Order: sequence, then structure tokens, then C-alpha cells
Amino acid sequence: MNTPIHYDIAVVAGSLRRDSFNRQLATALAQLAPQGLHLKLVEIGDLPLYNQDDDADPHASVRRLKGEIAAAHGVVFVTPEYNRSIPGVLKNAIDHASRPYGQSAWANKPAGVLGISIGGMGTSMAQQHLRNVLAYLDMPTLNQPELYLTNKPGFFDAQGAIAADDTRQLLQRWLERFAALVKQRAVAVEGA
Amino acid sequence: MNTPIHYDIAVVAGSLRRDSFNRQLATALAQLAPQGLHLKLVEIGDLPLYNQDDDADPHASVRRLKGEIAAAHGVVFVTPEYNRSIPGVLKNAIDHASRPYGQSAWANKPAGVLGISIGGMGTSMAQQHLRNVLAYLDMPTLNQPELYLTNKPGFFDAQGAIAADDTRQLLQRWLERFAALVKQRAVAVEGA
Amino acid sequence: MNTPIHYDIAVVAGSLRRDSFNRQLATALAQLAPQGLHLKLVEIGDLPLYNQDDDADPHASVRRLKGEIAAAHGVVFVTPEYNRSIPGVLKNAIDHASRPYGQSAWANKPAGVLGISIGGMGTSMAQQHLRNVLAYLDMPTLNQPELYLTNKPGFFDAQGAIAADDTRQLLQRWLERFAALVKQRAVAVEGA
Amino acid sequence: MNTPIHYDIAVVAGSLRRDSFNRQLATALAQLAPQGLHLKLVEIGDLPLYNQDDDADPHASVRRLKGEIAAAHGVVFVTPEYNRSIPGVLKNAIDHASRPYGQSAWANKPAGVLGISIGGMGTSMAQQHLRNVLAYLDMPTLNQPELYLTNKPGFFDAQGAIAADDTRQLLQRWLERFAALVKQRAVAVEGA
Repeated sequence: MNTPIHYDIAVVAGSLRRDSFNRQLATALAQLAPQGLHLKLVEIGDLPLYNQDDDADPHASVRRLKGEIAAAHGVVFVTPEYNRSIPGVLKNAIDHASRPYGQSAWANKPAGVLGISIGGMGTSMAQQHLRNVLAYLDMPTLNQPELYLTNKPGFFDAQGAIAADDTRQLLQRWLERFAALVKQRAVAVEGA
Repeated sequence: MNTPIHYDIAVVAGSLRRDSFNRQLATALAQLAPQGLHLKLVEIGDLPLYNQDDDADPHASVRRLKGEIAAAHGVVFVTPEYNRSIPGVLKNAIDHASRPYGQSAWANKPAGVLGISIGGMGTSMAQQHLRNVLAYLDMPTLNQPELYLTNKPGFFDAQGAIAADDTRQLLQRWLERFAALVKQRAVAVEGA
Repeated sequence: MNTPIHYDIAVVAGSLRRDSFNRQLATALAQLAPQGLHLKLVEIGDLPLYNQDDDADPHASVRRLKGEIAAAHGVVFVTPEYNRSIPGVLKNAIDHASRPYGQSAWANKPAGVLGISIGGMGTSMAQQHLRNVLAYLDMPTLNQPELYLTNKPGFFDAQGAIAADDTRQLLQRWLERFAALVKQRAVAVEGA
Repeated sequence: MNTPIHYDIAVVAGSLRRDSFNRQLATALAQLAPQGLHLKLVEIGDLPLYNQDDDADPHASVRRLKGEIAAAHGVVFVTPEYNRSIPGVLKNAIDHASRPYGQSAWANKPAGVLGISIGGMGTSMAQQHLRNVLAYLDMPTLNQPELYLTNKPGFFDAQGAIAADDTRQLLQRWLERFAALVKQRAVAVEGA
């Protein structure tokens, strides 16, 4: 058995706003990753709106996205909440990489879900819908700990890192649990 | 009290595919509408991906969409299911017209929800998520009858109309219930 | 048109614990109701587990519950969250009064939903599921404002009332919106 | 590494009706289980309504349920749909065995979800809510294949077995996937 020494994790952030808290969270998270876990933000802002008529000849950005997901050992979704559900922007990216039927890039990729909103209940309701989607996509998804982060002034420090020690430790523990899921899955695949 | 003689209903179909069953359903539905209810399909395929940075200066297609929703007396959502939830394309349109904060075009518009999928359970799961979104958007939404239509060969006839009598009658009864909700709401607004 | 001078509202609290925050909230809410709105807590702790075999000869507590709901002009659900959804105890009461098929006591009763939990995200996720249920039961449900209350020390004062002025005012505004929905529905029924 | 030769699976059926289709399905499923997988129906009809005040001194039926879940290598939930969600009866059992806080019997048990309803969309909407609950309970849950079975005359033969060959094979494939999840988890626990 020859497990890879490091795991590449694609990070999908569900907001295109330049100063989005969820994009900042994605960046801060990457810096907290344990040895061997490489988190990299995937671009979803250049995708067209999904149209099944394009399945035969997808846009270059769609091919790129599917390639990045296919190459990753796992996927982290950092999701804000728009109108009590997943942002359309995020769902559009999910729809693209799930198609055409039978050629989904998501299948069997271990997944983690987290998010930050003003009032933690925002991201919690979005995550509730997102988990239904990930179950269908056949992504083994980290159940616990859940991460419903509440944004407030000073959450990020001047360098964009997580300011509070306890929150940073919470994220580190989450990343360790996620790394264990990714590793377990990688071993299962190699052992099959 | 001076109720309008006819009601304009904006129809939002959640698929961009040219031969989409849900777009066909939207078209067939418009032909079944009772006297005084005018259903018109709204274009959502020309919208950019929603980005909050654009709120101050929205794309022309966004302004057009918001104008059409604002001018309508009600909204019908015809939704397929992508990956056990609302299509990203549909959610993107919803997100656009809900923004900026406090200037949503959806608020208080009576809404109806229906859809068709291969196996009615597809659209049912998408509608379950969509109803959560519409509640937040403060749209009084028709509860019953629910419409989870199952697509099968011959559902539409050669002219694109609903082929089966009982299905056509089901849709007509649904439209009557929806018209009553729209009218009730219009009266309440005028009476306020 | 002869609208009733007062409206009886059945309050269903989703927890049986004697000192339950949601039961306390239900009691405090009753004291804040505007003129003409009478809120009364309905007992659900004496119901058996729902079994369709008993439909023909329901337990006395079931008949009592159905009678109380049928007599009410509206229903308020005060729901905690158990395991990210509605408590089984609450769902059991809902199931009982919805049966037998075609004889639901809930149909057309205006509904309001609120709740309190440690971290507002708890009740928010429960409410997301509950709203799907109420839509099916054909209960016109107050959409906004949502009420996801966070329990913290001092939320209730020594007499069990809401301690903070702004929270009390929030609940009063919610009750006024709910009263308007109940009244609108009563007028629509009488006018029909 | 010393994997057990057989796995005990607790089956929780969400209906108390004697002739319930979901209980029949649970029984038929047990007969299709592959070598080494023992499915056994757990009684939930004798539980009291959950009340946190009883946590310190739970009813004998609650202790029995928690013991049976704790002893099992995995759990299968066979759920009908009541009012577009999980039956209260099923949720009550889940709530009981999840308590007191920190002593849940469900944690880390691999789970499978299936159900049968008149129109597959019924169980699909219930399962969508149930999956949110199981994620919180930290149960690694089989994602695919989903099983939304539609009840129709002749689904079960006179002996209570699944009549149609293709449906039987579908259930067998599902059971094999579920057995693999249970085994993978058991190995991971032993290897830890």
C-alpha cells in the first residue's frame, strides 16, 4: 500500500465578492492546514450559466473546473447563505462539474462543509441544503464537527488570519478530522 | 375597491436547455390560464453570475429582470431538479432580484411552484428547498395542490400542449387556486 | 361581513420538559398578544405514538387535540431543535391531528413559527423542516419576520417575561403581523 | 487485524401500523441480506414521548433501544413519509437514543436510508430531512444508490418477499454497498 505523501484539496467558495468573508475564510483555512494537506481555491466566477445544450462542447472554464476537481483528493465547500440556501453561483459550479450524466467530477471525493455569516444561522440553513446535494453527488462528507461561524468585527486580523485562538483551534481540529476522512478514503480506494 | 381586470404573472423556468421539459411546461401552462391571468416567461439566461460588488451598478439584464418582477402581480416558478436541489441557474436569478438588501423585487409577490422531472421525486426535492427560499423572500406561496409532474413519452402533444385530459385539468385547477391567491393578495394590498 | 371580535390561537410547544425555554417562550408570548388575540397552550404530552391502525378509534387525547385545533383561528408553533430537525414529540402531534386522510385539523389554519435555542442556528434548522411540513398541511404561514431566538442567561426575567425591551418589541411586532394574517384569512373565509 | 465474521444491523422502521409497507419492506430486506449481514428490526412502538426530564432515569424501553443500537455495527432506517417529513414516531426514537447530550447511541454507526411510499416522492422528501439529522448524529451514511420505492399492488408476493426481480436485485446491490460501508468502518475502528 503506497499512500500519497500529500493530499490536494480543492476549495470552492460560494461568493464572488472580492472581500467576501467566505473567501477570506477559505484563505485563512489554507494557512491552518496540517502537514500534507494542500488547500487551493478553485475559480468559479468565470463559468457560464449551466445549459445542458452545451454538454457536448463545454466552455474552457468548465473543463478546467472539472479537471481541478478530478485531480483533487477532496473538496472543501465554504458557503455563505443567500436567501436561506446555497448561493446560485455555488450551485451553478456544482451543476457544471456534475455533468454530463455519468461523468460527474464530484463522485467519491471526500467533502467538508463550513461557512461564515452574520448570525451563524445563515450558513447553517445553506449547509442543510448543501448536504442534501453532496449526498446525491456521492461525496462522503464530514459530519462533525459542524462549522457555523458568526462573522463579527475582528474575526480576521490585519493579515487575514483568524484572530481568536479558540476559533483557530476549532478550525485546526476540523481540518484534522477532514484530513483523516480524506486519508481513509484514499487508502480504501488503493486497497480496492 | 377597484381590482385590476387582469393579472400579469411572471414565469421563471429553471432550465436554459432549449427543449427543456420545464420550459415546455411553462409554455403549456400559459395556454391554460383562466380569463384575466396573463403568464409570461421571464428570461434568466442572459444574467451574469451574481456578485455583490456589482450591486451599485447592476447589469442591464438584472435591471430588466427586477423590473419585470416588480411589474408582475405574481410569480410562477417552474423548476426542474439538478442534484436534488434548485438549479444554480434559477437560484442565481432569485439572488439577483433579491438584492441589494432591502430592495428585493420578490417581496410580497404571491408565488406558485411546480415542476416536472423523470420520476416526480426529482422536482419534489427541489421544490422542498425552493419553498424555504420563497418563505424568506416573503412571498405568499400556494401550498396546495402540489404539482410534482412525471415526464414520460407523450406528456406533451405535437403542438406542445398537455396531452392527457386529467393532467390538463389538474393544471387548470392549480391555476385557479393560484389566481385566487393573487386576487386575494391584490385586494388586501388595495384595501390596506 | 361580521368578523369575530377576538381570535383564539392554539400554541403548540415542541418540548415536554417542565422548564423548557420554548414553553417559557410560549407563555411569555401569550402575555404580549395584542388586543383580541388569545393564545392558549395546547397539551401534546399525553398523546400516544401515532399508529394508523388507531385512526378508526382515536385516543381521547387525540380527539381533544383535534378539537382544540379545529376550534382555533390560527396556530403558533414554538419549536426547539432536536438533532437538527423538529422534535419527534412535536411531529407526533402534527401527525395525529393531520389524520385520517382528508380530515386534517390543520388545513387552512394560519400558522406562525418561532423558537429559541442555544445558538439561534438550532431552531433555524428545525424551522426550515417545519415550514416544509406546514406547506403540505395547507397552512398559510407567516413568512417574515423570522424569529430565531438565542437563549442566554437573563433572557426571561424572574416573572418569566421577556427581559430585554428590544426582544419584547420584536415579539410584539411579530404578533401584530401574525394577527393581520389571521384576520385576513378569517375575512377571506367569511367573504367566500 | 481481526474483522468480525458477521455484522449485526439494527433496522428502524418508521411506522407502527401492523401491515405497514415500510415494515414489510424491512422484513423483506432482511431476507435479502448478503452472507454475514444480520438485519434485525428494533421495536420503537413501546417508547414514551421523549422528555428531557427523564434523562436521569430513562424508561426501560429507552434503555433497551439504546442497548440494541450500541450493540449494532450499523443501522438501517426504513422510512415512510408523514406530511412531507419523517414520521414523529421515528424522530421520537432517534431523539431518545441520542440523549443525554454526549451519550448518543448513534454516533459513528454506519447508516443506510430507504423507504417506500405511494409515489416515490413521498419517501424522498422524508429522506431529505432524515439525512440532515443523520449528519448531525455523526453517522456515516450510504449516499448512493438512493432507494425511493413506489408502492403498487403486487410489490410484495404472498410470502411477503419482493415480487419483481429487478427490484430485488436493486435491494441486493444496495445491501452490498451498505455492507461494504459497515465493513470499511469496522476496519477503520479496529485499525485506529
